[in-house]
Amino acid sequence: MSATLHGIGVSSGIAIGPARLASHTRIEVAHYVLQKAHIAEELERFDEAVQTVRAEMSALRSQIPANAPAELPAFLDMHLMILNDSMLSQAPKQLIETQQCNAEWALTQQMEQLVAQFDEIDDAYLRERKTDVVQVVERVIKVLLGHPGHLPLAEDARHDGILVAHDLSPADMIGFKRQQFAAFITDMGGTTSHTAILARSLNIPSVMALHNARSLIRENETIIVDGDHGVVILDPDETVLEEYRLRQNEWKIEHQKLKRLKGNRAATLDGVVVELHGNIELPQDVAAVQESGATGIGLFRSEFLFMNRADLPGEDEQFEAYREVAEAMNGMPVTIRTLDLGADKPLAGLTAHTLNPALGLRAIRLCLAEPKLFRTQLRAILRASHFGQVRILIPMLSSLPELRQTQYAIEAAKASLVADGIAFDPAVKVGGMIEIPAAALAAQSFAERMDFLSIGTNDLIQYTLAIDRADDSVSHLYDPLHPAVLQLIAMTIRAGEKAGKPVSVCGEMAGDPLLTRLLLGLGLRSYSMHPASLLSVKQRVLKSNSVEAAAQAGKIMRGHEPDKLQTLLARLNA
Amino acid sequence: MSATLHGIGVSSGIAIGPARLASHTRIEVAHYVLQKAHIAEELERFDEAVQTVRAEMSALRSQIPANAPAELPAFLDMHLMILNDSMLSQAPKQLIETQQCNAEWALTQQMEQLVAQFDEIDDAYLRERKTDVVQVVERVIKVLLGHPGHLPLAEDARHDGILVAHDLSPADMIGFKRQQFAAFITDMGGTTSHTAILARSLNIPSVMALHNARSLIRENETIIVDGDHGVVILDPDETVLEEYRLRQNEWKIEHQKLKRLKGNRAATLDGVVVELHGNIELPQDVAAVQESGATGIGLFRSEFLFMNRADLPGEDEQFEAYREVAEAMNGMPVTIRTLDLGADKPLAGLTAHTLNPALGLRAIRLCLAEPKLFRTQLRAILRASHFGQVRILIPMLSSLPELRQTQYAIEAAKASLVADGIAFDPAVKVGGMIEIPAAALAAQSFAERMDFLSIGTNDLIQYTLAIDRADDSVSHLYDPLHPAVLQLIAMTIRAGEKAGKPVSVCGEMAGDPLLTRLLLGLGLRSYSMHPASLLSVKQRVLKSNSVEAAAQAGKIMRGHEPDKLQTLLARLNA
Repeated sequence: MSATLHGIGVSSGIAIGPARLASHTRIEVAHYVLQKAHIAEELERFDEAVQTVRAEMSALRSQIPANAPAELPAFLDMHLMILNDSMLSQAPKQLIETQQCNAEWALTQQMEQLVAQFDEIDDAYLRERKTDVVQVVERVIKVLLGHPGHLPLAEDARHDGILVAHDLSPADMIGFKRQQFAAFITDMGGTTSHTAILARSLNIPSVMALHNARSLIRENETIIVDGDHGVVILDPDETVLEEYRLRQNEWKIEHQKLKRLKGNRAATLDGVVVELHGNIELPQDVAAVQESGATGIGLFRSEFLFMNRADLPGEDEQFEAYREVAEAMNGMPVTIRTLDLGADKPLAGLTAHTLNPALGLRAIRLCLAEPKLFRTQLRAILRASHFGQVRILIPMLSSLPELRQTQYAIEAAKASLVADGIAFDPAVKVGGMIEIPAAALAAQSFAERMDFLSIGTNDLIQYTLAIDRADDSVSHLYDPLHPAVLQLIAMTIRAGEKAGKPVSVCGEMAGDPLLTRLLLGLGLRSYSMHPASLLSVKQRVLKSNSVEAAAQAGKIMRGHEPDKLQTLLARLNA
Repeated sequence: MSATLHGIGVSSGIAIGPARLASHTRIEVAHYVLQKAHIAEELERFDEAVQTVRAEMSALRSQIPANAPAELPAFLDMHLMILNDSMLSQAPKQLIETQQCNAEWALTQQMEQLVAQFDEIDDAYLRERKTDVVQVVERVIKVLLGHPGHLPLAEDARHDGILVAHDLSPADMIGFKRQQFAAFITDMGGTTSHTAILARSLNIPSVMALHNARSLIRENETIIVDGDHGVVILDPDETVLEEYRLRQNEWKIEHQKLKRLKGNRAATLDGVVVELHGNIELPQDVAAVQESGATGIGLFRSEFLFMNRADLPGEDEQFEAYREVAEAMNGMPVTIRTLDLGADKPLAGLTAHTLNPALGLRAIRLCLAEPKLFRTQLRAILRASHFGQVRILIPMLSSLPELRQTQYAIEAAKASLVADGIAFDPAVKVGGMIEIPAAALAAQSFAERMDFLSIGTNDLIQYTLAIDRADDSVSHLYDPLHPAVLQLIAMTIRAGEKAGKPVSVCGEMAGDPLLTRLLLGLGLRSYSMHPASLLSVKQRVLKSNSVEAAAQAGKIMRGHEPDKLQTLLARLNA
């Protein structure tokens, strides 16, 4: 009987094929109390299991297939780092001793504590990292329990099989390159899980967060996966199959066409040139940016340097990471955002948990409160500016006094480099993120005092609507098309025009082809997005007329009725 | 040696006098394990202590002096309610049994758990209620330990003494009416503590949250208390004393003058009439509103009905509270705000804790998600509309679909009353709080569709600047004069003018006499505030010229430099 499941589409495209169930289900861990005499033995058993997994991961790390995605080594490194962290490799041993419990139980307890800490994190990307912790711990537990480490699959898994799993780890994914699955669907995960990132870089349609799909699907059952709409159809009838085969074909043709656009200049039908840049999270992401034909990096998040560690990264470590990207981009702009963490993530003891971390000591607020931390990062970025076209982007600005303090800190960092005789680009451009309503309303003041602005639509929408979109109970109210949001974006773009300073959008709105024309109509000339969306957006730009888009966007801005909005948007995109 | 301490000024005025130390310090509670045989005895000891405190409180309740503030009975009732709650009167007994611990320890454990729950509450007023729990528990512990229940004071406490205490409970305050203290200063507390509310209603200058003042001050030492600036000066020299005596005198004269304004119409020099309304939290606050000469209630918070209880208040209970106020105000407008709780406070099991409660399921969002809860309140308010000029105010609106759902719910509640043959005012006015940036930006749409708007500046500032002002680490960034905030207020007022609908401000900005003229200049014609501020604001209005204020406000709006802002504001207020 046909059934439709709804999850989160994390990688675009349509796939049709037989289900291949991975027997990777959640492990049940028993709890038993040890006699004193057996504790030493249990400690040894734990150490051995950790050692086995470490060896296994190192081996995998050194045998990565040539055709594996560029992110894979980084993800495996992260898993090794998590495994080696004393929170997982040492703390459970104390639990074994004090609670006289078995190793599996101690490790599970420790994992749950870590996961609870991750759940407190405001940033969706970082919060998702708990998945990595769980994956590493499950690996160790499997070894402790004598289960096979790898994801077992039926031998005859065919070329067009659809992998159905409860959860997938980056290590599991090595296998997929050999198996050539047509799609992935998992119960766990989300847009920012590493599995999702890998799926996108492999261009394999994927739907995640299906909750209990794995238990509903039978081996070999025919499945349709629609990665664009987050839909999975089980055992479809012939009409539905035919419909999706058609769409799949169209999608494939479309995808081939898109690839051909890589070298094209992004200009509208009436000759307006638009900058299309990529957002990255790790230096390794540069490959995907280059692959997409982006003309620069509009947002290089620097948080990865500060994650999963007890200390803060030093100036040299940061410098190397920034330089690597600056050099790889070969003269194209690389916009490095200064640290965007804080109350939402305990940062090596610098920050305390607060009631509303999203409204707390974060990003530039934290950096201004911790001048040493900020100075180290600024010096590292400035040093990298000697090796490419580096730009500095300041997150979460809300007022001019903050901006002045920030500019002072940058000048001080420059002066210290001059004093140390270290080279940097003295004309390095400094821009501000517009992601707080106050900053959008005061965009004129910021535009006059900075070299460029970048609109962070995700946060801007959250604050403008007073909605935490990670909060299930209100996420339905999160609306990029709320007239207030469009007004603030339009205001910021106009402020940039007036001051003669470039304005880009680097939030998710920039990567949504359905909004490309609307933003163009509001006057946007620079988009920065996940590299996977870039060619679709470029295609949209190539087919647009800027004057018509402006006229239609004006109508959308003037119309206050949300009902009419969808009609107008459809007309704009027609 | 002279020293200056800074706290929070919670009640206006200047006092000079000798320190009177209350020996009320935090009690140390020991933990000991009981033998099984003694548990029954310990349970009895606990019950007796609770009973003693209950009797003591009931006695106090019935002996309230005639000149005591109107709030006192309500506060004592709340303490009795807390004492009778099973969380305090029953749960500790379970702890005594299961943990075999002493009664004091069990009660302290239970208190700490309750206090931790209160700390999670987003609303400053409700969060402060933990003080009441602590005060009740300390009272019981004192009885258990055989300490005197009342706050002991030196016998010769003179008329002009300044009471210095670690903390004060409403019960402690009964004594003050007899002792006639000139000022209160405490280590604990804040603007919304009951002690602060009582101090304001007694018109006694007070500074709280001084942290360790009590341990720094010696008995009989001369102290200056400046309740307007939250400053306490210990052992001042003659010059400082002279200065403050002068200011004290001026303040007294000013205060007498203000009282004479009670019956005056609030109109500017050029004849523009302004509405000055009061904000209330409890039906009992009506007395203070009438005392202030307010012409209506601009904000009646309904949260008190939902607080400190395990169930939800029924329709009749709510109706009685609303009717009491509607009748007492005798035809003047009474604006009842529908429930403004949610993710920030666990509401009888309806809501779950979320990462950013300020951005979560609160207020109208919660009411729309819980139609029964909303319907009960709407019916109760509508029924009260038969007994006075009741208006309905909807908090946290962010979009038109929400407004439409709300209007539908109101129509449905009306229809159900018609069906039940219950009287109400069919033309009851419905207004919206403008406290989310999106609502201010879309104020025109809301103004066209509602009867009035009310700007909640406290939340509006928080969201516009992405600042939780209860968060110490960022509260310095909270700025009512940020150009973006002023723009949103001005936009909302203009939207109301255009649609011909009244707009008021009911956040703290309305009660700050330094901002009266600026708001007047932005076009505001209706202010609602704590009754204690009303006459000062009225005085300000009487001395203002609306045309001049508009010209100066325009300059402030156009000036983007925060430095110049203070100069311009000073000029406006000159």
